[in-house]
Amino acid sequence: MRILGIDPGYAIVGYGILEYDGFKFRPVTFGAITTEAGDEFVRRLKVIYDDMTTLLGMYSPDAVSIEKLFSNTNVKTVINVAQARGVILLAAENAGVPVYEYTPLQVKQSVVGYGRAEKPQVMEMTKNILGLKKTPKPDDTADALALAICHGHNKTGIEISGR
Amino acid sequence: MRILGIDPGYAIVGYGILEYDGFKFRPVTFGAITTEAGDEFVRRLKVIYDDMTTLLGMYSPDAVSIEKLFSNTNVKTVINVAQARGVILLAAENAGVPVYEYTPLQVKQSVVGYGRAEKPQVMEMTKNILGLKKTPKPDDTADALALAICHGHNKTGIEISGR
Repeated sequence: MRILGIDPGYAIVGYGILEYDGFKFRPVTFGAITTEAGDEFVRRLKVIYDDMTTLLGMYSPDAVSIEKLFSNTNVKTVINVAQARGVILLAAENAGVPVYEYTPLQVKQSVVGYGRAEKPQVMEMTKNILGLKKTPKPDDTADALALAICHGHNKTGIEISGR
Repeated sequence: MRILGIDPGYAIVGYGILEYDGFKFRPVTFGAITTEAGDEFVRRLKVIYDDMTTLLGMYSPDAVSIEKLFSNTNVKTVINVAQARGVILLAAENAGVPVYEYTPLQVKQSVVGYGRAEKPQVMEMTKNILGLKKTPKPDDTADALALAICHGHNKTGIEISGR
């Protein structure tokens, strides 16, 4: 099974694609879609949608695993992340790939085995599980890989695409 | 100038298209895109994107006027509205139509001439300005028409598409 993990955002969208045979994960590719702060917001949404569509077309994942959005103290940021997440979900739906969402708690439990794990522990475990020499950068990419691992371990996330 | 007003949402997207010659508004069409509560969220986003794309293609507006999103007490609703708003903005960008956003205060000031106007006053004035016999239903449609009037009166909204 090929899983595309996504850490949603509007400035940086982390992604990581893993091949999983039920025992071992193999990294296929990982990185980040970035948009220019100086660009108009609508243009940034289009870059994210187009790059996501390219990624889905190139790597044909069987599932997308994406972080569930919560509110935080900065509501403006949440609104903009949610708008970007909307076009990411649309790209997956248009590519016919089912989408699963997981909470940060589920990711931590799945990757570290402990829901209250700190971020550095999650990064370290992600690196070890994937047999990487260094933790992938930016953090958004490492988070995306953790989401892909989480889906591989669970396959019980809430499917939000109804396929 | 042909203006497409949009009241964003994920269950109901109100829309109203007005022709404006600088003096008078003429309604071209108005209504609402609706999505099924029982459908998966990703599917609902696709319906909104596809219907918006159809609307933009059929009526070729010169501008989209959309409500600026604010937080309210229900953060989950805001997140879902924002995700839907993201795909609406993407549809406009992909159709090459510039997008302008206005706050509820700007809409009230523009339509009623008074920023603290109540919703029924906005609806009544919208109806009168457009020479309609009845206030359009649902409210989302009336709100969308008010947004289109606001853009006609102002054309100074914050353009968020950089065209």
